Amino acid sequence: MDVIDWLRAALGEDADDVLSFEPDHLDAARGDHSGWVSDGLPLAVVNARTVDHVQATMRAASEFRVPVVPRGAGTGLAGGANATAGSLVLSVARMNRILEISAEDQLAVVEPGVVNGDLNAALEPFGLFFAPDPASKAISTVGGNIATNAGGLLCAKYGVTRDAVLGLDVVLADGRLLRTGHRTVKGVTGYDLTSLLVGSEGTLGVIVGATVRVLPQPQGEPMTLGALFPDVRAASDAAARVTAAHLRPAVMELLDGPALDRISAHLGERTIRDALGATGGAAYLLVQFDGPGAAADAALASTLIAETGGTVRVAADAEEGERLLAIRRAFHPALAASGTVLIEDVAVPRSRMPEMFAAIERIGERYGIAIPTVAHAGDGNLHPNFVTQGDEIGQEVWDAAGDLFRTAVALGGTLTGEHGVGVLKRRWLAEELGPDSYELQVKLKSVFDPLGILNPGKVFG
Amino acid sequence: MDVIDWLRAALGEDADDVLSFEPDHLDAARGDHSGWVSDGLPLAVVNARTVDHVQATMRAASEFRVPVVPRGAGTGLAGGANATAGSLVLSVARMNRILEISAEDQLAVVEPGVVNGDLNAALEPFGLFFAPDPASKAISTVGGNIATNAGGLLCAKYGVTRDAVLGLDVVLADGRLLRTGHRTVKGVTGYDLTSLLVGSEGTLGVIVGATVRVLPQPQGEPMTLGALFPDVRAASDAAARVTAAHLRPAVMELLDGPALDRISAHLGERTIRDALGATGGAAYLLVQFDGPGAAADAALASTLIAETGGTVRVAADAEEGERLLAIRRAFHPALAASGTVLIEDVAVPRSRMPEMFAAIERIGERYGIAIPTVAHAGDGNLHPNFVTQGDEIGQEVWDAAGDLFRTAVALGGTLTGEHGVGVLKRRWLAEELGPDSYELQVKLKSVFDPLGILNPGKVFG
Repeated sequence: MDVIDWLRAALGEDADDVLSFEPDHLDAARGDHSGWVSDGLPLAVVNARTVDHVQATMRAASEFRVPVVPRGAGTGLAGGANATAGSLVLSVARMNRILEISAEDQLAVVEPGVVNGDLNAALEPFGLFFAPDPASKAISTVGGNIATNAGGLLCAKYGVTRDAVLGLDVVLADGRLLRTGHRTVKGVTGYDLTSLLVGSEGTLGVIVGATVRVLPQPQGEPMTLGALFPDVRAASDAAARVTAAHLRPAVMELLDGPALDRISAHLGERTIRDALGATGGAAYLLVQFDGPGAAADAALASTLIAETGGTVRVAADAEEGERLLAIRRAFHPALAASGTVLIEDVAVPRSRMPEMFAAIERIGERYGIAIPTVAHAGDGNLHPNFVTQGDEIGQEVWDAAGDLFRTAVALGGTLTGEHGVGVLKRRWLAEELGPDSYELQVKLKSVFDPLGILNPGKVFG
Repeated sequence: MDVIDWLRAALGEDADDVLSFEPDHLDAARGDHSGWVSDGLPLAVVNARTVDHVQATMRAASEFRVPVVPRGAGTGLAGGANATAGSLVLSVARMNRILEISAEDQLAVVEPGVVNGDLNAALEPFGLFFAPDPASKAISTVGGNIATNAGGLLCAKYGVTRDAVLGLDVVLADGRLLRTGHRTVKGVTGYDLTSLLVGSEGTLGVIVGATVRVLPQPQGEPMTLGALFPDVRAASDAAARVTAAHLRPAVMELLDGPALDRISAHLGERTIRDALGATGGAAYLLVQFDGPGAAADAALASTLIAETGGTVRVAADAEEGERLLAIRRAFHPALAASGTVLIEDVAVPRSRMPEMFAAIERIGERYGIAIPTVAHAGDGNLHPNFVTQGDEIGQEVWDAAGDLFRTAVALGGTLTGEHGVGVLKRRWLAEELGPDSYELQVKLKSVFDPLGILNPGKVFG
């Protein structure tokens, strides 16, 4: 009897529905949205529909010492959910029910496969929202957001995914079901296992349920500003002045010159002119305020931006605001249209952003690679995108990325702000953490996963 | 050579300054603000001034297998920092420097012994504040706030201590110095050790430094409301309606009838009448809004409260607001004046507060104990205070508290919202967590503390 026979028996009459051996499915599970595809095929994809299915899978894997790769929508950017040779891919994408929305307690209870955007659509009639907003929110799952502690555009004001998770249901490596956290805002009984599991990238357990905090939608209409600058340093200064004035924009996004050029080429200069009343410029800053102070905040920000050399347009209505947002949204499509893209994800203290932008320019020149960059300027999280020609990401890109990571860490930052380590960044992890922290984390993993079957090879080397 | 000789040698010329064997000091370290005093005396109190002192202490303790009890200001309410027989009390109260305030990055770097209020005083000129605001903030340390994941009045809007901690410097059981987290808002490299350490009550390591997030002070003047209600259910309903209207008060505090009676007796009925323009009532709700929407929010809340049967006073100015706040602030002094007090700390989902108040009344009647209660009504965290006569907290109080805890857990809540487990709640911990979580947490502790020398007997049985 092998692991598949054992699992088939455990799944009983659900086995045929749950287990897939289709070559296409096995093959698709080797990739994610990073562009990286793993070597070798998994044994099967387990399309779990229930917690029982997940528990049966983990018991089978424990029995036969078979690696399990937990997976949601497969929209990750670090190779964290990619199948490896001989593994069981445990997909929770079909566990996609919203089990409860409590308007009174401002929380939702969901299965892990619920798509972030679907949860938000369901919350909308209650005037509530789930704050984590990764760019992938239309297609990524809440479980995946939690497994990677996903960020997004709203984090500086509304927090990262960790801040939105009250409790988790997790199937452990041996198949036991663990419940962590509370339905309450506060709770300090024992260690914060919930936070430990958030961002653990499938290496500590399989998330099968989550109780998440939801927030009232901000009152009133948001106010949106867009501004062009002669260079990225001026745009960066303007963002710093907005922060220094103690304004708290919901969104503050910065595009550098190479990014703006590509967007301009992609959308057409006319679109930029229609949105901003101007073209040219070598950096773009998008700022959006919400809540009752939005209009006053936008007026002050507009002044600060103009003083810093920006040509600013304050959107008069939602339609104009949408045009300003569209420039930012065109970043990824514009890049994808211009070559093969490696999306990077460093974060630095906000005050070090100008140095980081300068370093990106230097690295681009040194390696001869275009690195258009967008930054969540409110929280110092930059996405330098390495654009090359050809189908594969070459060694020179990884060398350049290594330089980038070391620079971010040297500036007091990190090699990943919101995407996670997965496979693609594991070679630099120990360097950032240092040997003591790395060793401690490996030991913590072994408490949860003594057999080393949970997403082995991910995060840690 | 014993542990003291070894430590004296390691401390060198600092030894006399750092080590205390004064009977008064040893005795004082047996208590905290819970009223509970441990049996037996510690070997010494180590008054560390530097990270080196802390490292030397942990190395000595490892060498001789001597328990170490980390301690800040000793203002805890769960017996978590109380000395035990034969231990080294490792006080970091003298490590009280603010090392950096970065207005640009909206963070502060502090030693653990900095008093919360002192940090806030230092931030004030920058227009910034450290959001965690336990009632003890004038005397409790930032390190202690972190070790217990302290809460306070502002949490529903501004988060708990965990949300304010970006990174930690921690001395491990064997004396190594571990750095966790980042100076950035975002960062997802490896497990969230920072969050694991927050609230770990000295059982995983000794916090010797913290990088904390600070926030811009809200704009404009706060608006304060006070209201009397015929009963606690009506007050609870009013709080629920404020939440349901998607208002986000900075402060929303609820006092029940027994609490209000004692405060009235303590302050005098005249003071209540001066503040509220009315007396009588069997519950008090205090609501404060801040930020640009404060006035509009207060107007709406006032209407909702009146509709729910409350007699409401909206403070016209800061002085009137102060009088409304003073009623709430008199809770603890009024109780202390009326007997021996055990301060409890359950949390329930907000929607279950009326049931929790009803249960508190039932438990009070069943055990013949007065249980005046104040609740942070914005987040469902209740502090039932068991008031008895005599110097000691009797067994019937603990039996009643046990009932209280079980009720809170049964309602989807927890036996401690913000005070921690320490010694006083450890007997109920396994019941709330369940055997799997409890066992896992004990194993996690042993990764950090294989010799079991870090605050043994605290949190876990």
